[in-house]
Amino acid sequence: MTPPTYDFVIRNGTLGDARGLAEGDIAVQNGRIAAIGLNLPKGKEEIDAKGQIVLPGGVDTHCHIEQMSGAGIMNADTFETATRSALFGGTTSTVSFAAQHPGMRIRDVLSDYSALAAAGAMTDYAFHMIVADTSGENIEDLNQAISEGHRSIKIFTTYDKVRLQDMEILATLRTAKEMGALVCVHAENDAMIREATARLLAEGRTAPKDHAASHPRLAEIEAVERMCRFSELTGARVMIFHISTIEGIAIVRNARARGVNIHAETCTHYLFQTEDILDRADGAKFLCSPPQRTQADQDALWAALGRELEIVTSDHAPYRMDESGKFRHGRDAPFPKIANGQPGLELRLPLLFDAMVSDGRKGIAQFVELTSSGPARIFGLKTKGDLITGKDADLVIWDPERCHTLPDALHDNVGYNPFAGQELRGFPHTVVRRGEIVVRDGRLEAQPGSGRWLNMSSPG
Amino acid sequence: MTPPTYDFVIRNGTLGDARGLAEGDIAVQNGRIAAIGLNLPKGKEEIDAKGQIVLPGGVDTHCHIEQMSGAGIMNADTFETATRSALFGGTTSTVSFAAQHPGMRIRDVLSDYSALAAAGAMTDYAFHMIVADTSGENIEDLNQAISEGHRSIKIFTTYDKVRLQDMEILATLRTAKEMGALVCVHAENDAMIREATARLLAEGRTAPKDHAASHPRLAEIEAVERMCRFSELTGARVMIFHISTIEGIAIVRNARARGVNIHAETCTHYLFQTEDILDRADGAKFLCSPPQRTQADQDALWAALGRELEIVTSDHAPYRMDESGKFRHGRDAPFPKIANGQPGLELRLPLLFDAMVSDGRKGIAQFVELTSSGPARIFGLKTKGDLITGKDADLVIWDPERCHTLPDALHDNVGYNPFAGQELRGFPHTVVRRGEIVVRDGRLEAQPGSGRWLNMSSPG
Amino acid sequence: MTPPTYDFVIRNGTLGDARGLAEGDIAVQNGRIAAIGLNLPKGKEEIDAKGQIVLPGGVDTHCHIEQMSGAGIMNADTFETATRSALFGGTTSTVSFAAQHPGMRIRDVLSDYSALAAAGAMTDYAFHMIVADTSGENIEDLNQAISEGHRSIKIFTTYDKVRLQDMEILATLRTAKEMGALVCVHAENDAMIREATARLLAEGRTAPKDHAASHPRLAEIEAVERMCRFSELTGARVMIFHISTIEGIAIVRNARARGVNIHAETCTHYLFQTEDILDRADGAKFLCSPPQRTQADQDALWAALGRELEIVTSDHAPYRMDESGKFRHGRDAPFPKIANGQPGLELRLPLLFDAMVSDGRKGIAQFVELTSSGPARIFGLKTKGDLITGKDADLVIWDPERCHTLPDALHDNVGYNPFAGQELRGFPHTVVRRGEIVVRDGRLEAQPGSGRWLNMSSPG
Amino acid sequence: MTPPTYDFVIRNGTLGDARGLAEGDIAVQNGRIAAIGLNLPKGKEEIDAKGQIVLPGGVDTHCHIEQMSGAGIMNADTFETATRSALFGGTTSTVSFAAQHPGMRIRDVLSDYSALAAAGAMTDYAFHMIVADTSGENIEDLNQAISEGHRSIKIFTTYDKVRLQDMEILATLRTAKEMGALVCVHAENDAMIREATARLLAEGRTAPKDHAASHPRLAEIEAVERMCRFSELTGARVMIFHISTIEGIAIVRNARARGVNIHAETCTHYLFQTEDILDRADGAKFLCSPPQRTQADQDALWAALGRELEIVTSDHAPYRMDESGKFRHGRDAPFPKIANGQPGLELRLPLLFDAMVSDGRKGIAQFVELTSSGPARIFGLKTKGDLITGKDADLVIWDPERCHTLPDALHDNVGYNPFAGQELRGFPHTVVRRGEIVVRDGRLEAQPGSGRWLNMSSPG
Repeated sequence: MTPPTYDFVIRNGTLGDARGLAEGDIAVQNGRIAAIGLNLPKGKEEIDAKGQIVLPGGVDTHCHIEQMSGAGIMNADTFETATRSALFGGTTSTVSFAAQHPGMRIRDVLSDYSALAAAGAMTDYAFHMIVADTSGENIEDLNQAISEGHRSIKIFTTYDKVRLQDMEILATLRTAKEMGALVCVHAENDAMIREATARLLAEGRTAPKDHAASHPRLAEIEAVERMCRFSELTGARVMIFHISTIEGIAIVRNARARGVNIHAETCTHYLFQTEDILDRADGAKFLCSPPQRTQADQDALWAALGRELEIVTSDHAPYRMDESGKFRHGRDAPFPKIANGQPGLELRLPLLFDAMVSDGRKGIAQFVELTSSGPARIFGLKTKGDLITGKDADLVIWDPERCHTLPDALHDNVGYNPFAGQELRGFPHTVVRRGEIVVRDGRLEAQPGSGRWLNMSSPG
Repeated sequence: MTPPTYDFVIRNGTLGDARGLAEGDIAVQNGRIAAIGLNLPKGKEEIDAKGQIVLPGGVDTHCHIEQMSGAGIMNADTFETATRSALFGGTTSTVSFAAQHPGMRIRDVLSDYSALAAAGAMTDYAFHMIVADTSGENIEDLNQAISEGHRSIKIFTTYDKVRLQDMEILATLRTAKEMGALVCVHAENDAMIREATARLLAEGRTAPKDHAASHPRLAEIEAVERMCRFSELTGARVMIFHISTIEGIAIVRNARARGVNIHAETCTHYLFQTEDILDRADGAKFLCSPPQRTQADQDALWAALGRELEIVTSDHAPYRMDESGKFRHGRDAPFPKIANGQPGLELRLPLLFDAMVSDGRKGIAQFVELTSSGPARIFGLKTKGDLITGKDADLVIWDPERCHTLPDALHDNVGYNPFAGQELRGFPHTVVRRGEIVVRDGRLEAQPGSGRWLNMSSPG
Repeated sequence: MTPPTYDFVIRNGTLGDARGLAEGDIAVQNGRIAAIGLNLPKGKEEIDAKGQIVLPGGVDTHCHIEQMSGAGIMNADTFETATRSALFGGTTSTVSFAAQHPGMRIRDVLSDYSALAAAGAMTDYAFHMIVADTSGENIEDLNQAISEGHRSIKIFTTYDKVRLQDMEILATLRTAKEMGALVCVHAENDAMIREATARLLAEGRTAPKDHAASHPRLAEIEAVERMCRFSELTGARVMIFHISTIEGIAIVRNARARGVNIHAETCTHYLFQTEDILDRADGAKFLCSPPQRTQADQDALWAALGRELEIVTSDHAPYRMDESGKFRHGRDAPFPKIANGQPGLELRLPLLFDAMVSDGRKGIAQFVELTSSGPARIFGLKTKGDLITGKDADLVIWDPERCHTLPDALHDNVGYNPFAGQELRGFPHTVVRRGEIVVRDGRLEAQPGSGRWLNMSSPG
Repeated sequence: MTPPTYDFVIRNGTLGDARGLAEGDIAVQNGRIAAIGLNLPKGKEEIDAKGQIVLPGGVDTHCHIEQMSGAGIMNADTFETATRSALFGGTTSTVSFAAQHPGMRIRDVLSDYSALAAAGAMTDYAFHMIVADTSGENIEDLNQAISEGHRSIKIFTTYDKVRLQDMEILATLRTAKEMGALVCVHAENDAMIREATARLLAEGRTAPKDHAASHPRLAEIEAVERMCRFSELTGARVMIFHISTIEGIAIVRNARARGVNIHAETCTHYLFQTEDILDRADGAKFLCSPPQRTQADQDALWAALGRELEIVTSDHAPYRMDESGKFRHGRDAPFPKIANGQPGLELRLPLLFDAMVSDGRKGIAQFVELTSSGPARIFGLKTKGDLITGKDADLVIWDPERCHTLPDALHDNVGYNPFAGQELRGFPHTVVRRGEIVVRDGRLEAQPGSGRWLNMSSPG
C-alpha cells in the first residue's frame, strides 16, 4: 500500500460537520475527500487552516436563477452572477428552478435551463421542475425527467400563471410517489390572497407594508394543511417551502405524528426580519411571499429549527430596484406591482453562522445540518453535504473570529443588499468545489460553466 | 510531515455511522481513530474488512449491573459478566446504575460501584446516580459528584425503596439544572400501580400475565406528563426512560413543542415483544416494568424512533430463573415476587441490526444514531459514538450477511436468553475498544478491569 | 284576570324538553302554548296523555324535497309526500333546499320552491338557499333574500353542477357574515373524490360497496379543515353538514377552541349504519355521501353528540329503486350512476327515541336538544323547539312503551324503507302543529298546504 | 277540573331560563312552580313584574361557610350571615363544605355542619364532604353519607391539613364511582407551591403580590392533568374547581374528547380580576388560591364559559381584614400568613348579570345556565335551577335597568367588599325561596333556619 500523494491537504484546522467539531487534516484527491485524519501525509499543495474552521460547502435548495419572472419582471441574475454570489457566501451547490409555464413542455424547459446552467454555473447545481401544466405529454416528460435524476418537483397553490388545481396536484403527487421524486410546494391559499388583495386595493391600501396583509397567515395555514392531507392520501413525499407561521409549524408536526411523509423548511429572511421591515422607507426591497410575520412567529421558527424545520434556504429571488431600465419594478409602485423576493444566496451562511455558531459545538453541528447536510440528504445529493471520505471535496474555510460589515451590494446582480450595514462575525474566505479552489482568500478563481449538474438519487 | 505508522488499519470495509455508509479505511493509533480515508498508509497490523461493515461501538445507557436488587433478589451479573456480554454484542460503552438506597450516602455508593467496575469492567463505563434519599449531606454529595463528571441522575416515581416524593424530585431537578446534569426517570404513577396490584391480588390474579394489568398504561401516562411539567418548571434536562405507550410518545412530542427540555428512549423488548409474551408457559422470564404493551403501541414505538424516541437501550436487568439457589425468584411465583427485567446487553445491537439495516443506507444511519451516536451525545460521552478523527477507536466489524440462530444462553450470567432460537442476519464478529481488539472473530480477548470510567461532559 | 278558556289541554302527561322531564298539563290557545302547569283549567277539548310523553315537535334542518336531482334522477317526494312522512315521524318543521343551479337566479329559485311548499307542505318549513352561481345579480338576490328571513345558505365543495370555487365560497361567507346568515356546507374535497372514483372505475370496481372507497375519509377531513379556516378568516358562522369521521369531529373541536364560529351535525344513517351495509345484496338503497364509515367512526359520532355535534338531521334524499319507470336509478347500476341518499324524515325521531330515551331523564333532554331545540335555536326558528309559553304549539305525544316493527314502506314516495323490519320502542301517535292536531292516533288529519313558511331570525 | 287558586302569581314579567326569554306569568303554590302561562288565573297574592325579568334562583355550589379555617384563621361567616348575603344577591341555594380534618370522623363532621345549617341557613343548602382522612371507619362513613344523599365530595391535592396522597385520592374516587358521588377537587401540585413559596421567602419576597408567584400556573396544570388521568382510570365523575389558566381549559377539553367524565368551573374573581390587583395597597384583600392570572387567561376563561367551563361559582371564603380582634389576618402580614379568599356569595350574580345580560336573549340563557341550571343539574339538585312546573319556586325578580354602585360592605360578616365602588346595571330586588318571599324590594324577610337541606340525586 503506497501512501497516495494528495492533491492538497488542509491542515491544522478544526473540522466541523453535522456531528460537531473535530481536530484533523483533510486531504483532497481527484475532487473528492480522500482522507480525514491526524498528521496526514503531505499533499502537492498544503493549506494551513490553523485557527480556522473547515466545513462542508453549503447547499442551497431553494433559489431562483435566470429567466424567472415575478410580477412580469425579469430575474436579475444569470447562473454566472447568482452562483458567483453563492460561492462568496460559502455555498457550493444550488438547486434552482426550471420553470414551466402553461403551454411549455417540461422537457424543453429542462433543456433550456440546463444549457444556461452548463454555460454559466460556478456551483454544482440541480433543478426543481416547476410543474404548471400537466396536459399533453407533460406527465410523460415528467416521468422521463425523474427517471433521469431530476427528482424534485415544485408546485404552487397560488400565483396565476403557475397555480395548480387540486386535481393536478394529486396527479403530480401520484407521479412523484410512483417514480420517486420529492414535491416541493409553495403553499398559500390562492383565493384568500386574491380576496385580501382586492379588499386592500379597494381601500386604497397599496403601500409595501400592505403586502403583509394581502397574504393572510391563514392562507399559509390552510394550504399547508391541505398539502399534508394530499401527502397523506397519496403517500407522496412533500417538502413545504418557506414556513413562516407558528401554526404552519404545528401542522407539520402533527402530520408527521400521523406518519405523513412531510418535510419543511424556512428561509433566512423569516429568521432575521419581521413584517415591520416593510414599513421602512425602502420597504419595497424586502417584499417576499409569504411575507415576514411577527416576532412571535420568528421566535417559533428559531425554536423549530432542527425539529419541524429541517432546512434553511435563501429563496434567492433577485429583482433590481433601479428607477429605470429593464429590471425596474418600482420602489413606489403599489405592492401588487413589486416583484416579490430578496437576494439571499450570498448571506444565508454568514448570517446563520453569526447567529448560531458562537455557542460552540452544538451550534456548528446544527448549522451544518440545516444548511448543508440536511438539504443534501433530503434532496438526494449523495456526493454533497458531509466531511466524509469519498464525498465531493466541497469545503469552506471559515475564519470564525473575523468581523465584517456587510456592504451595500453583493456579488449578485441585484444591486442592493437587504442586510447592508450589519456586522457579522465569521467569514468564509476560502472555498473549494470538487477539489478546486474557487474562492481563495476572498478572491474568485472559478470559471463560468465549471459547475456540474447533480443527479438526485431516489429518496430513501 | 512524515506519515505516521498506524497501530492498525481496518481496510476495505464499508464504514457506517449516523450519516450513512461510505467506503474507506480506518486507521487507529494510540487508542484513537487517527484517520479515515481511501488507501491509507499501512499499519503495523492490517485487518481486512472486505464485505464487512465497520461501525462505532454501541453505547448502552440503560443497564443494571452488580448488586442491584429487584424484588429483593440479587443482580446476577458482575461487571465482568455483564460487560463481557456487552462486548460480544458489539457494545463497548455502558452506563449502569450506582444505586443509592435510603440511608446510604451518595459518595459512598459511587465509591463502591466505581471499585467494582474498575476491577471487572471490560467496556468503558459511566454511572447514573440513583438518588433515593436527598436528606443529610446527599445534595452536597450530588453536587460534588456532578462536578466530577457524574452528570447523570436516575430517579424513580415508583418502587418502595427508591421512590422520590414530588418535593425531592423538584430538589433533584433544581440541582441538576444548576450543576449541569441530566435526570433520567422511571416514570410510572406509584399509586396507580399499587392500587391495581392490590385489586389483582384480591381477585387471586397472580400469574405472570397479570403483571401487565398491574402497571396500567395510565400509570406511565400520568407520570410522564408530570415529569414534563416538572422539567418545564425547573428548566432541568430530563430523559424519560422506557416509553412503552402511544400516549407517552405524544406527551413527549407536545412537551418539546412547548420548548421543554425532554429526551426519551425506549428499550429493545418493547420493540420486539408484546404483552402476550407474558402468557407463555415461561412468561416469568419476560416480566419487566413498565410491561410490554399492545401491537399498536409497538408499531407506534417503531414509528417514533429517531423522532420522539432518540435512543434504544437494553434496560439489561439480569435475574436468574433457576429453581434453586440464591438467585431464585421463582417461575411459579406470584407476579409481585418475580424480579422485573430481562438480559439485554448482548442482543440489543444484533436484534436492531437485523430489523433495521437490511434496507441499506438509511437503516445504518438510524441504527447507529439510536444505539451509539445518540446516547453518546445525549449523555455527554464526548469520545464515543462516532467514526470521526480523534474519537476513541471503539469499532465493531459486522458481517452483514451472516445468519445465526440465537443460543439458549448468552455470555452474561442470567442463564436464559429471552430470544433463544430466533434467527438473525448480521453478526458483530470483531470488536475494538480504545484501539484494543477485545473480541476477535467471536473470541474474547479483553481482560476484566480493562474498561475505563467515562467523564460525562456538561450537556450542550 | 279571567282565566282563559284554552283551545285544548293535554293533561296528565310527562312533559319533556331539552331540560328533562316534568309533570304537568299543557294548554294550547291560538296555535301557541298558552300555559304549562299542574291542574290547568279545562280546555274546549281535553286530551288525556296519561302514561305518555309530550315533546316539542321535531325540527329537521337537513332534507331534500321536490325537484332536486341526484345523478340526474328526480327527487321522488313532493312537499306533500315528504312532509306527510315527517309528520308521521313526529317532525313538524322542515328546512329543505331551494336549489340554484348555474344560470338560475336565486330569487327565481326561491320563488319556485316557495310556491311548491305553499301548495303542498303540511309541516312548517323554511329553506336553505343552495348557492351554486354567484355571478350576475345573484349576490344582490342573496342579500335581499337574507334580509327577508332566508337566513340559511347551503354550499357544496364537491359535485359538478353546484360546487363552488374557493373565491366564491369566500364571497358567500362575506355576504353571510355581513347580512346575518348561516352557511351550511357539504364539505368533501372534490378532487380527492374524482380521483378516487376514476381509479376505481379504471380497476372495474363499480359495485355499490365501492362507493365508500370513492369518497375517501380524507376528502371530508380536508374540506372540513378548509371550511374551518374560511370561517376563521371571515368570521362567518358555518354549519358543517353530515360529519362522518373521527377526524372531522376533532377538527370541529379544535376550531371552536380557537374561537371559530363553527357548528356541526351528523345524520341518522351515520349513527345506525356502517359501510358494511353497502355490501348487502340491496346495497344500492343505502348509498349516501359522505358514505357510512367504520364502527369506530360511528362510536365516535355517538360520543360527540351534544358536544361537537349539536344536531342530528335526516338528510332525507328520496330516490326510488324501482326497476322501471321515471325514478329508476338502478339497483345494478355502477355506483356513480346510483343516486345518493335515503329517505329519513319519518324515522329520524323514532330511531333516536328508541336508542336514546330508554335511559330516562338524560336521554329525553339530549334527544329533544339534538332533534328539536338545537336545530330551532341554531337556525333562528324562534317559535319552535321548546315547551315554553308563547312558542308555537308543535307537540308530539309519544307512547314510550309501544313497540312496533318498521314496515317495508313509509309515508313518503320512495317505495322502500332502509330500516324495514327493525323493532323499535316508542311511538309518536299524535302530533300537533301550531295548535292543530295533524296526526291523531296514527291517522293523518292535516291538509296539504297547511304548513307555513318560517322566518329565520338573525343568529345570536 | 277546577282551576286552583295559586298562592301567588308573578305577572307580566319576562321569564328567563337557560333557554332564553319568554313572556308569561308564573304561578306558585305550595312552594312550587304550579304553572307558567299567558293570563294565568288570579292568585291570592299578585306581584306585578312588568318591565322586570324573573329568573330561577341562583345556585352557588362552591362556598365556604362557618368554621372553616384558612391559614389558621376563622371563617367570618355563620350560616345566617353567609346565606343572608346570598339571598341579597339572588342566590337561593348553596353548597358549602363539611370540612373533615385528619382525626375527625366524617359522620361527626356532617352532623356538626348539619346542625349549624339547620339553625342558621336562609337558603336551601347541601354539603360537599371534604375528605381529608380515609383511615378507620371513614370510608364506611363516606359510603353511608353518599347513600343518604350527600353526593358530593371535595378533595385537595394541596394544603397541609387536608391534602390527600394519590392512593387516598384513588380510594376516594373508587368509592365515589361505586356509590354515585361527584368528586370536586382543588387541583394544584403541592410540591410546586411549597417549593415556590420557600424560594420566595428565601428571597424576602413576602408581599401580597408575591402570592401569585407562589402558586405557579404549572401547579394547576399538573394537578388538573393528574386528576383527569385518575378520573380516566377509575371512571369516577370529577369536577375541577376554579380553573384559572388557559392550559387548564385545554386539558379539560382534551380529557372530555377522550371520554373522561370531567366537569370544570371557574369563579367570579378569575373573570373580573387579574394578578395585578394583588399589587394594590390593599392587595391582601384579594388573595385567593389559585391566584388571579393574566389578562390572556381571563379572556380564555370568558371564551370557555358554556364550553369547557360549565359553572361559575363564588368560592366565597370570608376572612376579615380588621387590624385587631379574633379575625385578624393581617393586611401587612407576609403572604403565607394571609388567609386566602374573598367574599363572593352576594355579588356573583349581579356582576355576571351586568357583564352578560345586556346583550339580550343569549346572555340570559347562558347566565342562568352557568349560575343556576348548570350547577343544579351537575350536583343533582333536582328541584332547583329551572323555571319548570313542579320545581321549587326559587325565583328572583331582576330590574334589568336599575343601576347601582356597590357599597363598602355587603350583607355578610367580612367587613369589606372586593368590588366596592363599582357600578352595575341590573338589580335582584325580590327573591322567592320555595314559594316564600325572602327578600322583598331589597328588604330581608327570611328567618334563620328557614333553609332546608337538599338531597343530591345520583348523577346521570
